Amino acid sequence: MKKSHLKIAVIGGGSSYTPELVEGLIRYHEVFPVTELYLADIEQGAEKLRIIGELAQRMINASGKLITLYTTLDRREAIRDADFVATQIRVGMLDARSRDEKIPLSHQLIGQETTGAGGFAKALRTIPVILGICRDIEELAPNAFMINFTNPAGIITEAVSKYSKVKSVGLCNLPIGTKMQIAELYGVEQTRMFIEIVGINHLNWTTRVVLDGDDVTEDFMTRLGSIGQSSPANIPDLEWDAEFIHSVGALPCAYHRYYYMKEEMYGEMLEYYQATGKTRADDVKEVEAELFELYKQPELHEKPAQLEKRGGAYYSEAAVQLMKSIYNDTGDIQTVNVRNQGAIPCLPDDVSIEINCVIKSDGPHALGLVKPLPPQIRGLLQVVKSYEELTIEAAVKGDYASALQALTLHPLVGDERIAKAVLADILEQNADFLPQFQR
Amino acid sequence: MKKSHLKIAVIGGGSSYTPELVEGLIRYHEVFPVTELYLADIEQGAEKLRIIGELAQRMINASGKLITLYTTLDRREAIRDADFVATQIRVGMLDARSRDEKIPLSHQLIGQETTGAGGFAKALRTIPVILGICRDIEELAPNAFMINFTNPAGIITEAVSKYSKVKSVGLCNLPIGTKMQIAELYGVEQTRMFIEIVGINHLNWTTRVVLDGDDVTEDFMTRLGSIGQSSPANIPDLEWDAEFIHSVGALPCAYHRYYYMKEEMYGEMLEYYQATGKTRADDVKEVEAELFELYKQPELHEKPAQLEKRGGAYYSEAAVQLMKSIYNDTGDIQTVNVRNQGAIPCLPDDVSIEINCVIKSDGPHALGLVKPLPPQIRGLLQVVKSYEELTIEAAVKGDYASALQALTLHPLVGDERIAKAVLADILEQNADFLPQFQR
Amino acid sequence: MKKSHLKIAVIGGGSSYTPELVEGLIRYHEVFPVTELYLADIEQGAEKLRIIGELAQRMINASGKLITLYTTLDRREAIRDADFVATQIRVGMLDARSRDEKIPLSHQLIGQETTGAGGFAKALRTIPVILGICRDIEELAPNAFMINFTNPAGIITEAVSKYSKVKSVGLCNLPIGTKMQIAELYGVEQTRMFIEIVGINHLNWTTRVVLDGDDVTEDFMTRLGSIGQSSPANIPDLEWDAEFIHSVGALPCAYHRYYYMKEEMYGEMLEYYQATGKTRADDVKEVEAELFELYKQPELHEKPAQLEKRGGAYYSEAAVQLMKSIYNDTGDIQTVNVRNQGAIPCLPDDVSIEINCVIKSDGPHALGLVKPLPPQIRGLLQVVKSYEELTIEAAVKGDYASALQALTLHPLVGDERIAKAVLADILEQNADFLPQFQR
Amino acid sequence: MKKSHLKIAVIGGGSSYTPELVEGLIRYHEVFPVTELYLADIEQGAEKLRIIGELAQRMINASGKLITLYTTLDRREAIRDADFVATQIRVGMLDARSRDEKIPLSHQLIGQETTGAGGFAKALRTIPVILGICRDIEELAPNAFMINFTNPAGIITEAVSKYSKVKSVGLCNLPIGTKMQIAELYGVEQTRMFIEIVGINHLNWTTRVVLDGDDVTEDFMTRLGSIGQSSPANIPDLEWDAEFIHSVGALPCAYHRYYYMKEEMYGEMLEYYQATGKTRADDVKEVEAELFELYKQPELHEKPAQLEKRGGAYYSEAAVQLMKSIYNDTGDIQTVNVRNQGAIPCLPDDVSIEINCVIKSDGPHALGLVKPLPPQIRGLLQVVKSYEELTIEAAVKGDYASALQALTLHPLVGDERIAKAVLADILEQNADFLPQFQR
Repeated sequence: MKKSHLKIAVIGGGSSYTPELVEGLIRYHEVFPVTELYLADIEQGAEKLRIIGELAQRMINASGKLITLYTTLDRREAIRDADFVATQIRVGMLDARSRDEKIPLSHQLIGQETTGAGGFAKALRTIPVILGICRDIEELAPNAFMINFTNPAGIITEAVSKYSKVKSVGLCNLPIGTKMQIAELYGVEQTRMFIEIVGINHLNWTTRVVLDGDDVTEDFMTRLGSIGQSSPANIPDLEWDAEFIHSVGALPCAYHRYYYMKEEMYGEMLEYYQATGKTRADDVKEVEAELFELYKQPELHEKPAQLEKRGGAYYSEAAVQLMKSIYNDTGDIQTVNVRNQGAIPCLPDDVSIEINCVIKSDGPHALGLVKPLPPQIRGLLQVVKSYEELTIEAAVKGDYASALQALTLHPLVGDERIAKAVLADILEQNADFLPQFQR
Repeated sequence: MKKSHLKIAVIGGGSSYTPELVEGLIRYHEVFPVTELYLADIEQGAEKLRIIGELAQRMINASGKLITLYTTLDRREAIRDADFVATQIRVGMLDARSRDEKIPLSHQLIGQETTGAGGFAKALRTIPVILGICRDIEELAPNAFMINFTNPAGIITEAVSKYSKVKSVGLCNLPIGTKMQIAELYGVEQTRMFIEIVGINHLNWTTRVVLDGDDVTEDFMTRLGSIGQSSPANIPDLEWDAEFIHSVGALPCAYHRYYYMKEEMYGEMLEYYQATGKTRADDVKEVEAELFELYKQPELHEKPAQLEKRGGAYYSEAAVQLMKSIYNDTGDIQTVNVRNQGAIPCLPDDVSIEINCVIKSDGPHALGLVKPLPPQIRGLLQVVKSYEELTIEAAVKGDYASALQALTLHPLVGDERIAKAVLADILEQNADFLPQFQR
Repeated sequence: MKKSHLKIAVIGGGSSYTPELVEGLIRYHEVFPVTELYLADIEQGAEKLRIIGELAQRMINASGKLITLYTTLDRREAIRDADFVATQIRVGMLDARSRDEKIPLSHQLIGQETTGAGGFAKALRTIPVILGICRDIEELAPNAFMINFTNPAGIITEAVSKYSKVKSVGLCNLPIGTKMQIAELYGVEQTRMFIEIVGINHLNWTTRVVLDGDDVTEDFMTRLGSIGQSSPANIPDLEWDAEFIHSVGALPCAYHRYYYMKEEMYGEMLEYYQATGKTRADDVKEVEAELFELYKQPELHEKPAQLEKRGGAYYSEAAVQLMKSIYNDTGDIQTVNVRNQGAIPCLPDDVSIEINCVIKSDGPHALGLVKPLPPQIRGLLQVVKSYEELTIEAAVKGDYASALQALTLHPLVGDERIAKAVLADILEQNADFLPQFQR
Repeated sequence: MKKSHLKIAVIGGGSSYTPELVEGLIRYHEVFPVTELYLADIEQGAEKLRIIGELAQRMINASGKLITLYTTLDRREAIRDADFVATQIRVGMLDARSRDEKIPLSHQLIGQETTGAGGFAKALRTIPVILGICRDIEELAPNAFMINFTNPAGIITEAVSKYSKVKSVGLCNLPIGTKMQIAELYGVEQTRMFIEIVGINHLNWTTRVVLDGDDVTEDFMTRLGSIGQSSPANIPDLEWDAEFIHSVGALPCAYHRYYYMKEEMYGEMLEYYQATGKTRADDVKEVEAELFELYKQPELHEKPAQLEKRGGAYYSEAAVQLMKSIYNDTGDIQTVNVRNQGAIPCLPDDVSIEINCVIKSDGPHALGLVKPLPPQIRGLLQVVKSYEELTIEAAVKGDYASALQALTLHPLVGDERIAKAVLADILEQNADFLPQFQR
């Protein structure tokens, strides 16, 4: 892939996360020499895009790197001949997310951005837009890699893989964060560890930990029970029960709390909402408003520390690591979202999974599992994956039956009468964003 | 298998269901000429066994059939050289069942005899006893077929298949009942219909209905929505939503109500319990007391009509049909519980499934599916099956970790903190029946 | 399917086998009341069709059955609204078969009608014509069952299943013959036996034999070694080695001799050819000429005994049994060729297999295997099936690369240089029948 | 695994290949700091071991590396506490190999050391000895990695994986040679290429070639046809047909010639044998005699150039690369033999395969395939793998039936009568080495 030009397009370039990404591109410029960076956004995001664009330009200027920056409201211009297209869109913006969180709560369900009924609504809105972007990539940059951060990242990756020809990889900052936490727990460089993470996006398990070549999984499970696991900013930090973790035989991810501690998580969520009238989306809005105020300051020419509060730690790290490993054919191991193809034999071949991959210039190659997954992991993985398959059918075809089954099947809903009521609210309140259901 | 002697052993012969079975053996005696019938029970059931034995003898006398009846408290005597061993035991009797229903209720969970936390407790108690019976069969009647009605029948079948060499088939009256209801709906003889039922015990779906060779599944789904489905006596008769049923694309079984209408089912259950202080087990105790009063009457020499209230309609039909088809190498199709062996490809090979089988003299042969199962069926099936696999491990090995994971994974529990609390109660209140956990 | 009209179309109605079929239709008319029988053939077969038509009419007249007979050169007329379409065509007629047998011989290879390079050539010629018939059925009789006897029957069934929407079943008289021989060996009615046959067409194994419900496979394997197995008229009757048969652990089919006794079979074939200048096709031509002379005799009004020499014993039995079981939704077990769908897990889902099926009104339902196939069966099955998949690709797409790989992979060829030379001859000598390769 | 001591045991240390290995250990000593090197051999190899030991000591002395060398006739001493156990034994020595080559020739079959009837005989002799070594490793060095070069390396790896607990990796110099040849073809450093090799030992295909991140497989296939592929010293250098290679869609390995060009290979072999009375084993004996003469020269203190003629090019490269990547947890990609575990879905999970793996300190992790294998590769792979499974059963259990089926199934035999005759000769002529068949 080595060439004189290296063009990156960022769809949803006006996102508050963009400075993270720009910072990473600058930091790794020597090994990943981006020459053109296009930030594209939609009309409604024009003002944000302007602010982000100006900050990004100041950051580039300060760095002295030879990166030419463009901002545009024409995503096709951004995509044309790009080598990488990063997608980080939010269809309906934070207002839609706020609804995604509140509708479930009004039905006594967990209201979460990426999982359960909230994540389902987000998927319905997002998939058609993402597939539209894919059409543009197929036409204008057929050799580009699409790097998708848009949530629900696993579902999006699967929809792209099933309904387009674009080469895409789904990315989440959770695995890289987990690996860093484990290295910290052992007080060693991450390079000395080999950590097996397996599952699907936002529902993965750490099944093996190897330190300097010695399998320390048993020891790790013991330490874990006593130490706990910190969560991303957006997930309440409930502590795992040591005995329970031991019985899983693997470290759940932060999002597992919504499943394994359903009741308490719902309780915390409801309490906060009743006390403040706000959900996480509303808080994020405030954080974002502050961030954009900061971003406007002409003297700012680096990523501000406050960005961490936003929940996107390691985000640029994950993104730039992936792109530079593809670019340089590095062959290192990263945990990303790819088409299954037998890597997890208890799931269909054509679904997306999150798994350790060797990153080569032609993309990620999944590493096979050493042992079959135990029933406690297999069962949960399979039922949530079935939910995801149904959600994709619903989103692509505007199919009510698939939508109703998806919600009924999801462990955070699980009752057809509630599913029906929630679905009615979701379809009504998102009508503007769901043309596929208006037929 | 044709031979002059045909010996049947009934383990749990003192059950109130036994007259059903005796009636069936009499009715079909011409084609299934039982010569010896052993009813075996344990010490605590001696009195019931005596009553049942006397009634059975009066029934046989009245029929004029040449069946020699024995009652015994020594199950090995009953098993020795038997051709069929029917198992219909209830470890801990109705008092244990009553606890199985009340413990979950006290944790705001559905308390049901065969599924959820209640069915789980029953499995823990029952599996070791059933495997003990298997040891006896392996020694004393290695060629016998074990016909198991003991619930949870699917889990028991799987435990037997994984941990013994006994040829066993699991049987439930639900499929035969479903088929009869559908034939009634169409107002035709059942022989004119071919009905595909697939899944696992108490969680099967009717996926195809063929009348006189025409696939009428679509039509059937439409009628269903408008007509509803009646339940066995033990399951509240909540009506299915037509739109929901249509979205499943198949007819759920009666037990699916505990999943798909979890909230309402729980509500009904709780209301009844709060109003009466009783659960289903308590009602059954009363029904049984009445039944045994009836059974004692010396002038009674047939199965009394009141037995239907007990919930076991078609029970003798299913049992005798199966045994006589094996005996006669009939090759007809019946829906029974067998080892999967690839018949449902999305489940492991070594688990039990409930599926249409051709019954030959060497046992049931599963019929392959015409189409892969859709995600809405697949996902629920897989997660409940994983629960069952874990439950068997817990029951056989007395393994706490598997037990905790089984309950956490079950859709009717689904929260580790609740699972842990329920499990503590189950282990404590069943301590007398769970030697495997006392190590 | 019960209806007042029952129309059968026979494509290739001028075949010398047709009197077999007509005889069967008459014999079973009470339970399979055909009202219209269409015999269709092509221009070149007009004379034969006339002779067969007249004989068939005399047979029907003699029987007194109410079957209206039509002969036609317009296959679409025959197909329109048919309930069953039987296909028994021979593209290129016996002259082509003669070439199929001689080309391989000239390369020191076995020259056989349905397997090896000969069967390959036949498949290339036949698949496009069969798919043309399928187009007509899709248009004119979309609910009809196609019953295919045309060889290579397994490959044809798979091609139809992959490249058309027609409901089709592939049929061969080998399994029914095997079952009859085994029943004879035991001196019992066939109904007392259950015989498991599994594999692909002309490469199946009898893996289990059950008599009166007792598994007598071991005993059967012993008897077999000592007794031998008779072959259809068209296959030299070489004797199996008892020790070898025992090591297979199953009874091979007659065609297995071409694989397991390759050298001797080739030797016999070559010797006969060198001595007489003839191959089997040439003999069949003579037999057919005699048969048609017989058929012409106005006093003949039944199937003549000489037909047996032709190699089609049990042919009408197999055909009419299948159609009448579909018609009557019988649910009996027959061995037919169907899409795999997981029934043989070591083969792809979308290939054809030959296996025991329960015949219902919606077609055959494969019976699952009780045990996985051992490596000695699995390996041969897989390699020949791969050959078949490649052959279908070659035939449908006119793809030279697939053709060359198919022949190279086949155990009766197995050398790319020989494959290339044979392929060149096949393509040249069949050029008139292979428009797909002329592009 | 980092530790002050690093002990390597070489079983079969008296092999003429050992100087290769010693040279590699010296060359990479900085990153793979062996402290103790044990060369073990059997009584009959004592003289050779002495010569090799003295040469190895001179090489180490000349290098100045701190490696302590031991020679021993007690393999348990060598194995005790070893970190790596390399196995390179030859049961029956070159005389047995000579017989392995001549017996098949006498039946008009290809006589080859590692495949066909010759490789089969070698497997029968070798597996019991290797499993004995495994018993010692299990007892004396349970954490050691066994690196097996002993042929047939794939079969040996599978036997070890099925019948012992030893962590083992099978290694062959063919893949590394293929990669080097391809890099040469493109005139680039090997690090710029990613080459997908998949299959089983001595029957692998190069299915994808990536240069600087661009998939150049198409281009590669074209070049190949025109350029040809050179073979290891031991395989005649017959040229591939360009059209044929194109139709495979992948580059076969050198050993494929025995399959794809069976006739010509046999012809060459026979001609050479008839002209000289010798097979490859006899030539090797001469080469070895010369080599050992060279090795004895006291002034020799490096690997002599003549060793290349022996056929083991890249051997030390492959071996030391693998051990040092495990030792250093390198995570680079190497093509080795491992248990399948779903990596090649069309083969059983428990068989050995040869595939690209990421080498970590806990061993190799197979990389998933990007596309399913096409039928032409799948079919050949499956049939040869089935042969291997049967061979292992035969070797471990001394089972005649499996042995006969293995040979009958092998594409280089393929006829039961020939198989039986060859098997009789093999069992007779190897009787001293096959105690498992003497029961």
